[in-house]
Amino acid sequence: MRYLILAEGFSADPHYGKTARGVLRYRRADVVAILDSTRAGETEEGVPIVGAVAEAMRYAPTTALVGVATQGGRFPPAWIEILRDCIANGIDVENGLHVFLSDDPELRELAEGNGVALRDLRRPPADLSTATGEVFEVPGTIVLTVGSDCAIGKMTVSLELDLEARRRGERSIFVPTGQTGIAIAGWGIAVDAVVADFIAGAAERLVVEGARRGGDLLWVEGQGSLVHPVYSGVTLGLYHGSAPHLLVLCHESGRDEVEGAGGGPHPLPSLRELVDLHERTALPRRPAKVVAVALNTRALDDAAARAAVEAAAEETGLPADDPVRFGAGRLVDAVLAARRASAARAEG
Amino acid sequence: MRYLILAEGFSADPHYGKTARGVLRYRRADVVAILDSTRAGETEEGVPIVGAVAEAMRYAPTTALVGVATQGGRFPPAWIEILRDCIANGIDVENGLHVFLSDDPELRELAEGNGVALRDLRRPPADLSTATGEVFEVPGTIVLTVGSDCAIGKMTVSLELDLEARRRGERSIFVPTGQTGIAIAGWGIAVDAVVADFIAGAAERLVVEGARRGGDLLWVEGQGSLVHPVYSGVTLGLYHGSAPHLLVLCHESGRDEVEGAGGGPHPLPSLRELVDLHERTALPRRPAKVVAVALNTRALDDAAARAAVEAAAEETGLPADDPVRFGAGRLVDAVLAARRASAARAEG
Repeated sequence: MRYLILAEGFSADPHYGKTARGVLRYRRADVVAILDSTRAGETEEGVPIVGAVAEAMRYAPTTALVGVATQGGRFPPAWIEILRDCIANGIDVENGLHVFLSDDPELRELAEGNGVALRDLRRPPADLSTATGEVFEVPGTIVLTVGSDCAIGKMTVSLELDLEARRRGERSIFVPTGQTGIAIAGWGIAVDAVVADFIAGAAERLVVEGARRGGDLLWVEGQGSLVHPVYSGVTLGLYHGSAPHLLVLCHESGRDEVEGAGGGPHPLPSLRELVDLHERTALPRRPAKVVAVALNTRALDDAAARAAVEAAAEETGLPADDPVRFGAGRLVDAVLAARRASAARAEG
Repeated sequence: MRYLILAEGFSADPHYGKTARGVLRYRRADVVAILDSTRAGETEEGVPIVGAVAEAMRYAPTTALVGVATQGGRFPPAWIEILRDCIANGIDVENGLHVFLSDDPELRELAEGNGVALRDLRRPPADLSTATGEVFEVPGTIVLTVGSDCAIGKMTVSLELDLEARRRGERSIFVPTGQTGIAIAGWGIAVDAVVADFIAGAAERLVVEGARRGGDLLWVEGQGSLVHPVYSGVTLGLYHGSAPHLLVLCHESGRDEVEGAGGGPHPLPSLRELVDLHERTALPRRPAKVVAVALNTRALDDAAARAAVEAAAEETGLPADDPVRFGAGRLVDAVLAARRASAARAEG
């Protein structure tokens, strides 16, 4: 695949360009151009930014990725023109929004006429059902990232820990639960897009599929937060449905309120309270322990970042680190040590 | 409305006939017949049971209600024939399953041809969105029923407490969140049928609508359980989205495991632990207190029921009662006392 990332108006925005940035970071080699007319002529991580689809054609993209995830997932109307241009130029489209391209009769007809595929990454499988309990038979170790808020890096932490574990020779796999993770890994289900009754069923299916793909260390991408007034239902359904043995608690340094939720302020509990909350809300059938804290220190300088990591470790009594800034080694050490301890307990 | 309840094969089953039984209990005056060929000629709460739609016509039903909710909500194939008969006889159909009647082209065509309406009670409104925070501006007192498991009587408790509060002259309203509640109250959203991202948004909309309908004591029908491996996501999304001030904890005496969930056994925490779990998982923005325990004692004799109520009160330190068996007075007293205490704190 040769990706053209569609990020019109958003390529510079760290929050709204989440899917674009994720693919750019973890599938850099497959990205040939970015479309954002407000930055045409610039580059982003060495990738040329173009102002129009016609201009992108010199890089021979095969697939256009809708790289913007707005709240509620609606489609900016101005984009329809860009999508038409992609289809007319024979480029497949992958879309991560709530609104499905293949539900638009005009785009679908255009796609069929041009022999182009429309892939809606958030469209749930048609045969989803409620959870069956099959997840409790998965033999591997299941590790879920949880966190204080949305958009603080839970997916990134899961990906970085998976990469490090694979470097160490583990049969490790990243289990994608959102549109960006799906775009990166090439499989998965957006658990926040399924019928509410099926959240745990979707999570269970993903873990079972991760094991089937050969993983015995399964890094499940977390979603939302147990204290998020909008998305907590998805978070708990994913938590119980994926039945993790171990949790990695993610937090962005300095954030003390849920961001972007109405009716607030919605204060965040302390890290220590979050550890406690997550362990108490585990299913009785599958107790889970928080084994490490992953801190996102992007807003801090190096010295402040080191101090924040140390403070998080001291507050929680757990290993802490920023895996993007300082490497994933310490967090993977903590997870593997917890796995060994649990295996020893099971044998003893 | 004159209801014909469709309960083929299930009218005697207390679990699977949930919707049938709910409507029978709370809209008894509107039910003219029950269809269940396995019990034709019998009666249920004084309502005649018939073996076929043709036979039901002598009671002049206007609306047939699909009174069965199977796990996952699929439609038993044998029912299609019964539905065809209803439509051919000019009877509207209300359906509470996941599968929507109006998505079936044949049934839809038949309904149009016969001037009959197909109402899918679980079909979410088309314009749902994520929660906005509007719920935090609702001036009334919001009371959510929570519980240890599914199908233990959370809806019934909400309905009984609402009835008792209205008898006392309160501007009280029942806020329906599932198909049976919707069938009983004539409005509502099945929150487990919405897109996962919109659970809290749906719950919020229902509370706002309850206030708009004149309620300042809003009894929100709970769903699932925080410790249910299949449905906990819906439970937490409903909890946070409805932003209750007060909780009534529901439990069935003698139940010590989640019923009907695979991969178990899934042990239930004690009542005291459940009180603690629910108070700890409240949104920081809207702390909630469990103010009473509603016990379902249907499996016990009177003496054992009284002892179970007393034991629950002692274990939790909270007022406890079985509102169906012994009346809703004590539980409504507890809720109104908590509301007064909270108003006094707000003024003091």
